[in-house]
Amino acid sequence: MKHLMDIIDFTVDELYSLMDTANDIIAHPDKYADSCRGRKLATLFFEPSTRTRLSFEAAMLELGGSVIGFSDGGNSSASKGESVADTAKVVSMYADIIAMRHPMEGAPYVAAGNASVPVINAGDGGHHHPTQTLADLLTIYREKGGFGNLTVGVCGDLKYGRTVHSLIAALARYKNVKIVLISPEELRVPDYVKSDIMDRSGMQYEETACLEDAIPFLDVLYMTRIQRERFADKDEYERLKDSYILTAEKLSAAKPDMTILHPLPRVNEISVKVDDDPRACYFKQVANGKYMRMALILKLLDETDASSEPMRDCETPLGLHCDNPRCITSCEQELEHAFKPAEGKKGVYRCAYCDREYKK
Amino acid sequence: MKHLMDIIDFTVDELYSLMDTANDIIAHPDKYADSCRGRKLATLFFEPSTRTRLSFEAAMLELGGSVIGFSDGGNSSASKGESVADTAKVVSMYADIIAMRHPMEGAPYVAAGNASVPVINAGDGGHHHPTQTLADLLTIYREKGGFGNLTVGVCGDLKYGRTVHSLIAALARYKNVKIVLISPEELRVPDYVKSDIMDRSGMQYEETACLEDAIPFLDVLYMTRIQRERFADKDEYERLKDSYILTAEKLSAAKPDMTILHPLPRVNEISVKVDDDPRACYFKQVANGKYMRMALILKLLDETDASSEPMRDCETPLGLHCDNPRCITSCEQELEHAFKPAEGKKGVYRCAYCDREYKK
Amino acid sequence: MKHLMDIIDFTVDELYSLMDTANDIIAHPDKYADSCRGRKLATLFFEPSTRTRLSFEAAMLELGGSVIGFSDGGNSSASKGESVADTAKVVSMYADIIAMRHPMEGAPYVAAGNASVPVINAGDGGHHHPTQTLADLLTIYREKGGFGNLTVGVCGDLKYGRTVHSLIAALARYKNVKIVLISPEELRVPDYVKSDIMDRSGMQYEETACLEDAIPFLDVLYMTRIQRERFADKDEYERLKDSYILTAEKLSAAKPDMTILHPLPRVNEISVKVDDDPRACYFKQVANGKYMRMALILKLLDETDASSEPMRDCETPLGLHCDNPRCITSCEQELEHAFKPAEGKKGVYRCAYCDREYKK
Repeated sequence: MKHLMDIIDFTVDELYSLMDTANDIIAHPDKYADSCRGRKLATLFFEPSTRTRLSFEAAMLELGGSVIGFSDGGNSSASKGESVADTAKVVSMYADIIAMRHPMEGAPYVAAGNASVPVINAGDGGHHHPTQTLADLLTIYREKGGFGNLTVGVCGDLKYGRTVHSLIAALARYKNVKIVLISPEELRVPDYVKSDIMDRSGMQYEETACLEDAIPFLDVLYMTRIQRERFADKDEYERLKDSYILTAEKLSAAKPDMTILHPLPRVNEISVKVDDDPRACYFKQVANGKYMRMALILKLLDETDASSEPMRDCETPLGLHCDNPRCITSCEQELEHAFKPAEGKKGVYRCAYCDREYKK
Repeated sequence: MKHLMDIIDFTVDELYSLMDTANDIIAHPDKYADSCRGRKLATLFFEPSTRTRLSFEAAMLELGGSVIGFSDGGNSSASKGESVADTAKVVSMYADIIAMRHPMEGAPYVAAGNASVPVINAGDGGHHHPTQTLADLLTIYREKGGFGNLTVGVCGDLKYGRTVHSLIAALARYKNVKIVLISPEELRVPDYVKSDIMDRSGMQYEETACLEDAIPFLDVLYMTRIQRERFADKDEYERLKDSYILTAEKLSAAKPDMTILHPLPRVNEISVKVDDDPRACYFKQVANGKYMRMALILKLLDETDASSEPMRDCETPLGLHCDNPRCITSCEQELEHAFKPAEGKKGVYRCAYCDREYKK
Repeated sequence: MKHLMDIIDFTVDELYSLMDTANDIIAHPDKYADSCRGRKLATLFFEPSTRTRLSFEAAMLELGGSVIGFSDGGNSSASKGESVADTAKVVSMYADIIAMRHPMEGAPYVAAGNASVPVINAGDGGHHHPTQTLADLLTIYREKGGFGNLTVGVCGDLKYGRTVHSLIAALARYKNVKIVLISPEELRVPDYVKSDIMDRSGMQYEETACLEDAIPFLDVLYMTRIQRERFADKDEYERLKDSYILTAEKLSAAKPDMTILHPLPRVNEISVKVDDDPRACYFKQVANGKYMRMALILKLLDETDASSEPMRDCETPLGLHCDNPRCITSCEQELEHAFKPAEGKKGVYRCAYCDREYKK
């Protein structure tokens, strides 16, 4: 049985295969209209995320399956103190596949370790959100024809924006993708993204604070929202939120076939005037997200009967304990802390749930 | 593509055609059991309205379709600041038709202008609620055999009761319908309903504060709820709420075939003792609402492939700006204000979203 | 038409027949995949209970039917003051069968008296929760092969635990079932359970405060959760909640084929280490609950067309009035109080809604 926790759980070949399936669904939707007849998807959303939830539900319904679930943890047994592990075991009795959104990092990983059906991470706090990256990749693939020789600008909140980190990690596995990091000083991409992802893979990148300077060179521009909830200091939020707005004026300097992406929802970081520009692909991206979720559901259900794969190998040295307050280990009862060696760093380990690094 | 924002968006002929379809569904439900196979309705309820939502969902399921959506704006992306326009564009990628309930007046009109699928207004604040009127009309049609030579009493809160205003607007297009307006002084029908709807169409009407006096003359009695949430002054609510209660005693003076209607939910404005009276049609009205929603969904999906109709023509004079705090223009980002000439009033314009009048 | 309010609404034979259907569904699920095609279940959850709701929804979907409903009363018309009776009448127009969860005791009984479709009590306050007992019974039946010569321990909160009371009532109808009541002094089973259920049926039972002493003799151990919400005094909750935890150590003294049950959700009253013990049957119990709900839905829909049965006979003496603040009579408008003679007690009556006893 296979789960999807992080975009890099899938190999480059697996991603191409998913994208091929998605393209086939787009071309021949009727072929798939009964693929999941009699199957149920459980959407376990411990925090609201309407767009992601509706995308999953539309995906399952277009495959002929049906959906159960909840849209808000406040309405769930979680408020009576049920553990994520138990929820996963219980829901395995009701559904054939689970999509879980949870405010705590690593919660879907706990679910995957306890469910008897495949689990998809539909967003775990600021940690991962791999199905958004699937949407991003398919859109680039369809708009650009592939991933070779691309200059991809990522703009906005690069510090907290997990979709950006995932996209960079995914693109780092292709040759000749160059990243331009466009953000205010305060929201620059974290060092570990540079050292552990971009430097290690030999990915080319540069940083700038100026969208206007960068835009003429880009093949793809990935805009992100500056989220109020990520800021402890609300004044800082107010000062920064309007800094990186894409307007028709700024766009006039861009290549005529630049692809504009955005994970949505947007507040005002892309002017609605831009929506009618043929380069604006963020609503196509929404549709592509649905098709990739369809392809993903098909793949995971297909592999359910195959022999069970072990979860990522853990090698937990004595005495390590994760103290990240946003990690699921901080609240899930009787959950053993687990660590795995950080790739390429001697004596450094990562929490198996939230990926925080610890030295031993 | 056609949307339904206001009951008068449909011609009298279109309404007869909808009622004919509904009657055919009632007579031959099996004929329609697969009409929407593979189609999805999105119920976007930015405020809760269980009865209306369940009616739409039951309607779509009885047509063989399926449903996605949310039942409360608090669980939606709206709480992250997404505009109604973007929500409509995104959900167009997931569903074939949208039913939207929203606390702001004109919000479904914004959705209709941005969606690539038909949008049904399922209630926008105190503004319109056309599918309730569809239920009302079918019930009168089925109980009375038509709309000729009817005396229709409307009783209760005629000031804030949008269902009453819509019903009057719909009935004003038939010949020989007389309206009896029964309400306390404080809750009389607004002047614009008299001048712009009843007077203009030449509809006969009279006003009274006494239900007992009026009841012997009525063919139809439409009771309405006095809603706590419409009152700034809660004491006034307490004083008025029991004034217009329909009891078995009052009913003894009514015609033996008078039709009693109510948009529901009721609190206590009709005694439950009345429920067993054969004249009580408000639960039939609930069923009829479902059948009219089925007919409506069929009609709008049918016309989706037809050439797109422009939204109502707007002719916005310079400098007009809507300042209604309950209008969607007060909160939707980058939304251009738009106005249309008020019919028959020179130099008067109405907001295209909330219909508030402005002089130029 | 038949409803399910209380487990004892069904005869022993009816329960065997339900269990036979459930076993057949487990053995041949495909036979039932279209049994409810075109039928709708309404899940009316006036308070959240995700596990129960998802079980009902999964059950209906596996029968080929579909589901409408709400998961939280706050999102329903109830917040506008609609009575349970009206909700039941309205939803009867939308669905073929209703499962209702409600915080007030007797609310589903009001619904059953007003709906034109079958109503299932999915939990009414601290009163009844018969479909949980159906899950319990099927699990015992499947694990033990029947109900003869069993010693069943029930452990934890026996005072407020309605699932325990229902299970005892159900088991009291079989011969040779012995109950061991294991609880702290403060949470002992109420006297009326002893006098009215166990004593009257001649059921053998004993009480103890010590789980370790009792465990070697048990064929079945039914663990229950100590719920925070049942305690007025939160300190008392903190002191007691860990008293009766089932661990691998305690389990070592149990019979090798003892069946461990739990209604779930658990907090920590069974250590997760116990989950891998083959005696742990509480996740099987979850699956069995779904199968029993499938059997129940089939049975009630089957009997819908049969002649209507009267609700339980009431014989209300003058002047009796229920004053239980958790009874639906305390809040439902225009609801006549009703009483029935308490079996075997002269001059004693029970509220028809909440079963509270009154003397006349």
